[in-house]
Amino acid sequence: MTLKAQYTEHSMQVAYTPKQLRARIRYGEYQTNTSGQCQGFVQGNVVILPEDWAADFLRFCQLNPRPCPLIAMSQVGDPLLPELGDELDIRTDIPRYRIFHGGELMQEVMDIVNHWRDDLVTFVLGCSFSFEEALLADGLEIRNITEGVNVPMYRTNIPCRKAGRFSSDMVVSMRPMLAADAIRAVQICTRFPSVHGAPVHIGDPSLIGIHDISSPDFGDAVSIHEGELPVFWACGVTPQVALETARPPLCITHSPGCMLVTDLPNSKLAVL
Amino acid sequence: MTLKAQYTEHSMQVAYTPKQLRARIRYGEYQTNTSGQCQGFVQGNVVILPEDWAADFLRFCQLNPRPCPLIAMSQVGDPLLPELGDELDIRTDIPRYRIFHGGELMQEVMDIVNHWRDDLVTFVLGCSFSFEEALLADGLEIRNITEGVNVPMYRTNIPCRKAGRFSSDMVVSMRPMLAADAIRAVQICTRFPSVHGAPVHIGDPSLIGIHDISSPDFGDAVSIHEGELPVFWACGVTPQVALETARPPLCITHSPGCMLVTDLPNSKLAVL
Repeated sequence: MTLKAQYTEHSMQVAYTPKQLRARIRYGEYQTNTSGQCQGFVQGNVVILPEDWAADFLRFCQLNPRPCPLIAMSQVGDPLLPELGDELDIRTDIPRYRIFHGGELMQEVMDIVNHWRDDLVTFVLGCSFSFEEALLADGLEIRNITEGVNVPMYRTNIPCRKAGRFSSDMVVSMRPMLAADAIRAVQICTRFPSVHGAPVHIGDPSLIGIHDISSPDFGDAVSIHEGELPVFWACGVTPQVALETARPPLCITHSPGCMLVTDLPNSKLAVL
Repeated sequence: MTLKAQYTEHSMQVAYTPKQLRARIRYGEYQTNTSGQCQGFVQGNVVILPEDWAADFLRFCQLNPRPCPLIAMSQVGDPLLPELGDELDIRTDIPRYRIFHGGELMQEVMDIVNHWRDDLVTFVLGCSFSFEEALLADGLEIRNITEGVNVPMYRTNIPCRKAGRFSSDMVVSMRPMLAADAIRAVQICTRFPSVHGAPVHIGDPSLIGIHDISSPDFGDAVSIHEGELPVFWACGVTPQVALETARPPLCITHSPGCMLVTDLPNSKLAVL
């Protein structure tokens, strides 16, 4: 066995720390989605905007904390986010980035070192991985995980509050549950307001403008078993829709599923 | 205007303290149900049993805290409950009592001074008045209050855990709500485990063995508006059903709606 093969075999068994995983990402050793990596640590959605768009976006997040729970915001032009991770550099530490011009996806890249500018501001928003981990730890089933697919997401008719050039109806994710589990999920998720918090709707999808639960607008459909209620959470795709509509000249995001892995334990996001 | 008429007119406007109301009850000046009295203070369901039945009933409460949330238990033979109220005497301080022999209602009385025995033990269980007050304070509508009727209650097929001679399926109360209000109600009631806590079921009544939501087993039917979900809470009628089935030789309870008014602020029952 070569030294490299030994290293690879060994690396399969290693649970990397967030800092170690970010280093691997930085050096091109890890280039795929981060689901299931660094369990117990917060992963974040990333939005990078020019300074003259950042104030509106910040206000949009503050007015709509359920779909846009802001975990951190950088200084203007500073690629570091020390409050989220030791040596964390937003230009290199995400596996894949998407670059949008005027709301149009232009390219997908492995780092943004050559795209960085002194006027860019980074926003990190909480994601559902954190609360899914808390639900699983309590013994609840999460159907999209059981079925090995992306969570189903739907456009709704629930309006977000408008902030400058940003507006959108809320996008929600859906996890089917028995009523007793849905009640337990409300309790657990209420502890985590910065990763979307409690569900926004339970039951009849048509009451929030969803007309076909079997055809999600994003992600994959999942089975809903007899006696289960669909349980809907505000979803981090909402700000992406708002960004597509607002069409800023430049916007950089993570690629779906390829999140920013932080040093924050999920438990630090619990308000109690 | 006579002195007595002046007193009566004045008394209509007085908000009695719990201690004052208990004194009025003790002296026969207040003989009806306590709903809406002494707002902000805990009212309790009362069960009085001989010592040789008390251990089983205590264990039934401990095994089934949702329908039987125990707030206080007296010493054997002691009619006072100092932890619930200054000078509170369980023999005189409830407007009406019911006396059961072998599970059969024998009489309704205004005090139990002549029925008291040295082997009796008093149990006080939390009641829904406390959480209804918290829901109203948050701006939620409670349909049975809006419609001026008793809350509808239903027998279910949710088994309680058996304790000695006590067993029962759970009885639940129902309040219809829009989904967002139901989610908020879960959050609020979770803070109050000793007054039944979070709902036990939301949605399809047949899943918990209720076949006709318009025909409650106890209390009155209420309107369910379009788009509302029935929300079900564990109910304090459950231990009454268990007592009827167990048929202890003697059991004394409050009359429905004529509760024990305590000195405990409702807020003291909040776990956070």
